[in-house]
Amino acid sequence: MADGSPPYGPVASDLTDARRRDEEDPLGAFRERFLMTQDPVAYLDGNSLGRPPKATITRLQEVLTEEWAGRLILSWEDRWVDLPMQVGDQLAETALGSAPGQTLIADSTTVNLFKVLHAACQLRPDRTEIVVDDANFPTDRYLVEGIAADRGLTVRWLSPDPESGVRLDDLAGVLGPDTAVVSLSHVDYRSGYLADLAGITAAVHEAGAIAVWDLCHSAGVIPMSLDSAEVDFAVGCTYKYLNAGPGAPAFLYVAARHLPLVSQPITGWFGAADVFAMADRYEPAADIRRMLSGTPSVLGIVAVQEGLNLIAEVGLDRIRAKAVDLTEYVIALADQRLAPLGATVASPRVAAERGGHVTIRCADAAAVTQRLVAAGVVPDFRNPDLIRLGLSPLTTSYVETWTALDIFAATLSNS
Amino acid sequence: MADGSPPYGPVASDLTDARRRDEEDPLGAFRERFLMTQDPVAYLDGNSLGRPPKATITRLQEVLTEEWAGRLILSWEDRWVDLPMQVGDQLAETALGSAPGQTLIADSTTVNLFKVLHAACQLRPDRTEIVVDDANFPTDRYLVEGIAADRGLTVRWLSPDPESGVRLDDLAGVLGPDTAVVSLSHVDYRSGYLADLAGITAAVHEAGAIAVWDLCHSAGVIPMSLDSAEVDFAVGCTYKYLNAGPGAPAFLYVAARHLPLVSQPITGWFGAADVFAMADRYEPAADIRRMLSGTPSVLGIVAVQEGLNLIAEVGLDRIRAKAVDLTEYVIALADQRLAPLGATVASPRVAAERGGHVTIRCADAAAVTQRLVAAGVVPDFRNPDLIRLGLSPLTTSYVETWTALDIFAATLSNS
Repeated sequence: MADGSPPYGPVASDLTDARRRDEEDPLGAFRERFLMTQDPVAYLDGNSLGRPPKATITRLQEVLTEEWAGRLILSWEDRWVDLPMQVGDQLAETALGSAPGQTLIADSTTVNLFKVLHAACQLRPDRTEIVVDDANFPTDRYLVEGIAADRGLTVRWLSPDPESGVRLDDLAGVLGPDTAVVSLSHVDYRSGYLADLAGITAAVHEAGAIAVWDLCHSAGVIPMSLDSAEVDFAVGCTYKYLNAGPGAPAFLYVAARHLPLVSQPITGWFGAADVFAMADRYEPAADIRRMLSGTPSVLGIVAVQEGLNLIAEVGLDRIRAKAVDLTEYVIALADQRLAPLGATVASPRVAAERGGHVTIRCADAAAVTQRLVAAGVVPDFRNPDLIRLGLSPLTTSYVETWTALDIFAATLSNS
Repeated sequence: MADGSPPYGPVASDLTDARRRDEEDPLGAFRERFLMTQDPVAYLDGNSLGRPPKATITRLQEVLTEEWAGRLILSWEDRWVDLPMQVGDQLAETALGSAPGQTLIADSTTVNLFKVLHAACQLRPDRTEIVVDDANFPTDRYLVEGIAADRGLTVRWLSPDPESGVRLDDLAGVLGPDTAVVSLSHVDYRSGYLADLAGITAAVHEAGAIAVWDLCHSAGVIPMSLDSAEVDFAVGCTYKYLNAGPGAPAFLYVAARHLPLVSQPITGWFGAADVFAMADRYEPAADIRRMLSGTPSVLGIVAVQEGLNLIAEVGLDRIRAKAVDLTEYVIALADQRLAPLGATVASPRVAAERGGHVTIRCADAAAVTQRLVAAGVVPDFRNPDLIRLGLSPLTTSYVETWTALDIFAATLSNS
């Protein structure tokens, strides 16, 4: 089912239907490619931490025994030193719809966003405002606050509808000649709202400002083209839909047209023109490497590469199609089973406006989450009254999803 | 042989003596604890990248299969969220001689130094100078340059003797009422000079300034006490003598007395007072967590922990004693075999002034390094005329060391 299809009708009240959907799922076989041990009954938090691909575990073992133990320091020259750019380019091709030379894998999303926000502000030195929304992820808001204070800028806060997210309309009357930078998330971490990346970026440019996108909840599950949308800067993490593991390094994108014009403040040796020349003064690399700082995590980047290999094999369009179908399925089940018990869908109902998760609003959400976990269903509590149900198209089955909603309903009934 | 012992006399010109030394080496058995496969004949670059402990490989496999695959997101609450502080405290006890609550494992050395330099500058807002030496590691110099420019401060450059490093005398006439921060390395990455951490810190404090130390080349090989030396801030990497692997996360130390007074600019969710409250505004954690930013690398921190377990088992004093003996041995061999061929020791000859490596100055050092590598000896070339011989007390044998110097001499003879 593609974006914009009509919503599901009633869903069967037993597992027969879910089993049939799993049998017919063209992506069903990919579950076998992930290691699943000692599992919960239903894991609906792949949008916080994706499952480990078996290939990643094998590859990490090779890196440990062959590249690290075997070649030792020589592996840096052999292959490691280019990993941030090489896997960045693979991410660009596989998931970002962008050309090579603009993307890196390194550091955390926080560190990367810190760098690109500074770089973005540099491009508009005479403007005075950074725009961000109060529903944005904490790190994004905290960094905008801090950088605005540091650079003497004003923060313009957007307050979007909490069950949706930042729409073009929210920007009318905010964007103007004072706007330096607009910092938004592609998919809202709570509601799951999928923002109009291209449309908003165009509006930001119309106002002469710079668009910075956080792709944490969209990279690997939403097809996009950063280049054709003319996005200026982007960052995102790799441990959700890219399945690269806990604390795996994040990514960073700088549009090629900006690269010669920007720098970043964390000036370490890996960002220098010639890393091993160890020059007297800092001379940034001419290319995307200028956004690097310290020694990147080899194990982490290799895990990103393996996650990307799987996504490339499946194809992002098929992943998106299953994400749409799974989220429709959850909404239909939630309407039937949870709404009568007072727990309601707090995510967009139009598939084209929704990412890979569905959020339920309910009373005592923290306590309900604890009971769900005790019953083997792992969702994600979000303060104060939200429970996120993350659907990972490569690993989430329909039976798992149906079972989770069934247990969710039972939990609410018994409380 | 302890610090300050008389230097070696002549060393036997064959392997018999080296074999005997290995047999008598109280740390010899620890080589078995590391995975050594497809090895070079002699690996003298453990001060760039230490070898992998077997326990690390086993432990990473457990984390992948049990903690990640098995418990999935629940592992964050189970055990991962405290890892940066927990392993930071273990590092403090094992290698830094400091009390708990002041140390973190996260990010790269570059990112950590960026944070602590900003924090250090905050403590002296009315002073105008940062002191650094022109022999310091590139990242350290680049960051000082950048932060000074950003904060409107002046950089005061020290120019120590290149075959030694920054001594107390070098600071006379430099420290004064304008000095805000002094940023130095404990062990010089080229000469191997071991600076007087306590003495210099005291002199810096005497001038009312703040001392920031880079411990990359000393952590895990030089006993120290940051607390009793009253060091203000420190950073360092974990992939050298701590054997945590390529790009493993670095560490950061903030003296407890400063913690309530400092902040850092990379304000991400992991540094907030309540990570999962996702509060409206950034409120830094009251404790050392305020120095965190984004999601830390779980695999990386676990590898640090395993490296520290080994160091704790052996004991830093025994590690230091072997480092002194190995470096004395290299100097004696170099004097006998390399000096007549024009390659001379460019490291301090007094053991108490030397870290864990010995640097040789020779013509065509880049080409000589390439020939050594081709012959199975892996040292580290440092631009323009230096070859570093790194001795890792837990893994470097005397036979390996003797063989490396023998091949080094042959390489010079044949060129």
